[in-house]
Amino acid sequence: MNTLGGLEIEDFSVGMKATFSKTITEADIVLFSGVSGDNNAVHINHEFAQATPFSGRIAHGMLTASVISAAIANKLPGPGAIYLNQSLNFRAPVRPGDTVHATVTVKEVLAEKRRVLLETTCMVRGQTVIDGEALVKVGSAHAAARPAASAVSH
Amino acid sequence: MNTLGGLEIEDFSVGMKATFSKTITEADIVLFSGVSGDNNAVHINHEFAQATPFSGRIAHGMLTASVISAAIANKLPGPGAIYLNQSLNFRAPVRPGDTVHATVTVKEVLAEKRRVLLETTCMVRGQTVIDGEALVKVGSAHAAARPAASAVSH
Repeated sequence: MNTLGGLEIEDFSVGMKATFSKTITEADIVLFSGVSGDNNAVHINHEFAQATPFSGRIAHGMLTASVISAAIANKLPGPGAIYLNQSLNFRAPVRPGDTVHATVTVKEVLAEKRRVLLETTCMVRGQTVIDGEALVKVGSAHAAARPAASAVSH
Repeated sequence: MNTLGGLEIEDFSVGMKATFSKTITEADIVLFSGVSGDNNAVHINHEFAQATPFSGRIAHGMLTASVISAAIANKLPGPGAIYLNQSLNFRAPVRPGDTVHATVTVKEVLAEKRRVLLETTCMVRGQTVIDGEALVKVGSAHAAARPAASAVSH
């Protein structure tokens, strides 16, 4: 474990997992429209969205995906990880009020490169709404000179 | 073009591109921390972030990536597209005040499946900060029964 409480490469084994959960509220959708610039009618216009097959407004896919970012930053590996890449498959819509459970599971530990491949899944009421993978870089307890970059995360 | 002003499968050709740009402000970073649940110190704690190799706070990678979502929803294909998947390679940090230019470029048109593969790149001052690909589904002007789902986007 590093000085920030995040995991280092020696701490990982395949199958380890952690979950961060967050309810996606009306406020989150409005604020995400603002921070992203994505003001698609299906997110912000109730009358329009009611006439679509979703019968109502839905959350931005990238808003739901952002809960994965929180799972990585807060839980596994936790502080100190560097986010290298993320793949996202959008499987089903998320509605205001839905609670998203983002679970990250260690799929592969690349010890020499200090990289960890994670399966990343977002679920709502037991249904997968997003799946994909993330690659993160972490520090090492045994590194002669631990790279300063291990203290940060995107 | 569909009734919402978004592009249909017949409108696409390889090489078409569009850019949506957005400045990532201090407010965006604070709000994104709230909507995502990702309160990593490197995003919200100036004193901590100054001691990292970034010498200051940086934006969440997924916040920068959300500008791609806006480029897809607002520009290419525009309203009516369904976001199927997205890959993201985080290449460099983005700081408060940086203007992100998200460019989507048509890489492949899968006419039968009405899917379009897009190259997606975020740049700041000419440097790539994120690259990757997106797959989106769009409607068809020639579909006998245009699927209702073509009116929505995640």
